[in-house]
Amino acid sequence: MISRTLAADLPAQIGERVTIAGWLHRRRELKSVTFLVIRDRAGLAQVVLPPGTACDVPEETVLQVEGLVVANPQAPGGAELTEPVVTPLSGPAGPPPFDLYRPALTATLPTILDHAPTTLRHPQLRAGFEVSAASAAGFRSALDRAGFTEIFTPKIVGSATEGGANVFSLDYFGRPAYLAQSPQFYKQAMVGVFERVYEVGPVFRAEPHDTARHLAEYTSLDAEFGFITDHFDVMAACRDAVAGMVDSVRERASSAMQLLSATLPDVPAQIPYLHFSEAMELISAATGEDVRQEPDLAPAHERWLCEWAEREHGSELVFVTGYPLDSKPFYTYPDPERPRSSYGFDLLFRGSEIVTGGQRLHRHEDYLKALAARGMDPAPFAGFLQVFEHGMPPHGGFAIGLERWTARLTGAANLRQVRLFPRDLHRLSP
Amino acid sequence: MISRTLAADLPAQIGERVTIAGWLHRRRELKSVTFLVIRDRAGLAQVVLPPGTACDVPEETVLQVEGLVVANPQAPGGAELTEPVVTPLSGPAGPPPFDLYRPALTATLPTILDHAPTTLRHPQLRAGFEVSAASAAGFRSALDRAGFTEIFTPKIVGSATEGGANVFSLDYFGRPAYLAQSPQFYKQAMVGVFERVYEVGPVFRAEPHDTARHLAEYTSLDAEFGFITDHFDVMAACRDAVAGMVDSVRERASSAMQLLSATLPDVPAQIPYLHFSEAMELISAATGEDVRQEPDLAPAHERWLCEWAEREHGSELVFVTGYPLDSKPFYTYPDPERPRSSYGFDLLFRGSEIVTGGQRLHRHEDYLKALAARGMDPAPFAGFLQVFEHGMPPHGGFAIGLERWTARLTGAANLRQVRLFPRDLHRLSP
Repeated sequence: MISRTLAADLPAQIGERVTIAGWLHRRRELKSVTFLVIRDRAGLAQVVLPPGTACDVPEETVLQVEGLVVANPQAPGGAELTEPVVTPLSGPAGPPPFDLYRPALTATLPTILDHAPTTLRHPQLRAGFEVSAASAAGFRSALDRAGFTEIFTPKIVGSATEGGANVFSLDYFGRPAYLAQSPQFYKQAMVGVFERVYEVGPVFRAEPHDTARHLAEYTSLDAEFGFITDHFDVMAACRDAVAGMVDSVRERASSAMQLLSATLPDVPAQIPYLHFSEAMELISAATGEDVRQEPDLAPAHERWLCEWAEREHGSELVFVTGYPLDSKPFYTYPDPERPRSSYGFDLLFRGSEIVTGGQRLHRHEDYLKALAARGMDPAPFAGFLQVFEHGMPPHGGFAIGLERWTARLTGAANLRQVRLFPRDLHRLSP
Repeated sequence: MISRTLAADLPAQIGERVTIAGWLHRRRELKSVTFLVIRDRAGLAQVVLPPGTACDVPEETVLQVEGLVVANPQAPGGAELTEPVVTPLSGPAGPPPFDLYRPALTATLPTILDHAPTTLRHPQLRAGFEVSAASAAGFRSALDRAGFTEIFTPKIVGSATEGGANVFSLDYFGRPAYLAQSPQFYKQAMVGVFERVYEVGPVFRAEPHDTARHLAEYTSLDAEFGFITDHFDVMAACRDAVAGMVDSVRERASSAMQLLSATLPDVPAQIPYLHFSEAMELISAATGEDVRQEPDLAPAHERWLCEWAEREHGSELVFVTGYPLDSKPFYTYPDPERPRSSYGFDLLFRGSEIVTGGQRLHRHEDYLKALAARGMDPAPFAGFLQVFEHGMPPHGGFAIGLERWTARLTGAANLRQVRLFPRDLHRLSP
């Protein structure tokens, strides 16, 4: 291993000779002195070249620098490297598509995405992915603590079940197959085995909408568990998962959040909630537009409800419960008191939906009734329906879109900024 | 939430009235008394029905039982539930494809796989997946501790790069696309951004071999990192990842291991290693068969080397270094001293390869040379090659097949036993 000190650890090594290694982030030539700024995974380190020393490798070249650590209040972290011996570890780097050393991003989104392996080195772009990684870790540890088992379900599936339209087709050894749009059926089935399961994995949507909030492939944080009373138990577990994600970002990615001037939400012990019909009443009264017969929330309604929750409850998070049964999938549990409403919910955060969840049907006969009521043929669901013939407890779950969550958290305007190598209608590479 | 005590916690509640809930694992009718054995995620609980009480629901029905906890040294855990009030939470369950309560498995693999949502409830089958989940958690925490960043790379890719043959083709909005056979290129590219990355995700191989050790979709534990001296640094990181997996299984899944009569390996501080050519010399000398010109290890050779390592070094794990360059992918770093050998390695465990890894090329000109030497067209790799024009440090990495690892660890004869809903040449559902 190249024995090295990380940039962030230099201040603890004043007076020592150390070796650092990283990318040449910037070369600043002043009249009397040249500074090299070296970037490694932990931060930036300043190297002072003595007058007359030549080091004209281009930015982004990988360098190893041995030198003496000296205190300098003006250097990043209060220390810099002097008397340097510089050794290149890669050939001279070609020019990046834009100046990575400028604190502000100066590139357009297509430039960023076309050259992602280089452009994501920009600390501000990189920061979003640190927040994303910390969020996934927090989701898992919150569920681990609650006794959930991690599962890995197949992404190639034999039938296009949930939403036939937006599914990718595949040649599977000469037979038709599809990419999984969600692990929904598998995670429900596995409640019968493990009681409590979660999965962090890719889901695929052949999404014909080319918008800032749609991707053809994204990471879904999925959870499902049994022995619930109703959807409020699912909402409580969802609240704990989100709180775990926030805690994990605070612990693991606080400097990334700082770099993005982003703040973490307070997650109340009980996130405020309101019923879908109550939400529609409020929106109708406030806006003058009668939306009480709408089957779903429009983006503007989601924004309005987030402002309302902030104002009325001081919360950046708000659950909407009781979505109309018709707007939710067939496996959604109906509200026994209000049969046109369901035990399905969404969680809204900073203006948009980031989680969808609910209680599911768990009795075989209820599935047959629900499919019949929707005029759906039960045949394609035979394998799934069989699960409910072998004893399934009342259960429910939720799914969080990792990219959508990260975008809300970091203020990214487009999901593509917080997805590695995004896939959409037009983009299949790099 | 249904307020309940888990089966494993009953012994701590002697003298209390509690509620348990789970599946009716077994009903045992003796002359004078009937026992119900209830299975939940934490274990088994025995319920004593007073004489004359009827409870004739079939096995696998989900029940809630309220009762008084009484000490009984003959009951599982030393406690049982008496004076029970039994409430079914699901309709009566249909008969499972085989008796789940029998300690030994009595079903064939096709039966197990065809009815997985029910058959995996058998504690012995379920146990393999607990080991698998604990292993993945251990991999991640070992790498987290070492400063790695988790990444989520695309599974839909624009070109069939690594091994054109065994790739699944996809209709991507009318264009051809492919399922990723590994995150190799993406993880190397991300070394330029994060220095150290890992991914836990699905990989896809259109594998025409229908054997116990091939799957069309499996979970790959991938790691890649920069600023290495050579492949021995990669082997050291791989050793730590494997040690982390073993520790995690010990902490999280020891009862699952016990149920499977499986034991954990000792992971030596330094796993023994030998060079490929030395391995071939040893095998030739020992078996009388001259294998010194073979380009790769056959399964029998892997078994022989594992026995050798056990005998000579007391280790169940052994690295084979210096694989012939021709048998490794084009991005493999050649041994400067022995140009026909590479800095690629495998890790063998209990008779078979479970990890493959190595140092990679990091200079752009070396890639062009390597492709030319193999007569490969660089054009399809243009996007990947571009990465190396922007400053890449010496780096390497490895990939662990989660199912293969779990099978070795638990003694499963077929990978399909430790993969949820396996996919192969013939199997696309459930």
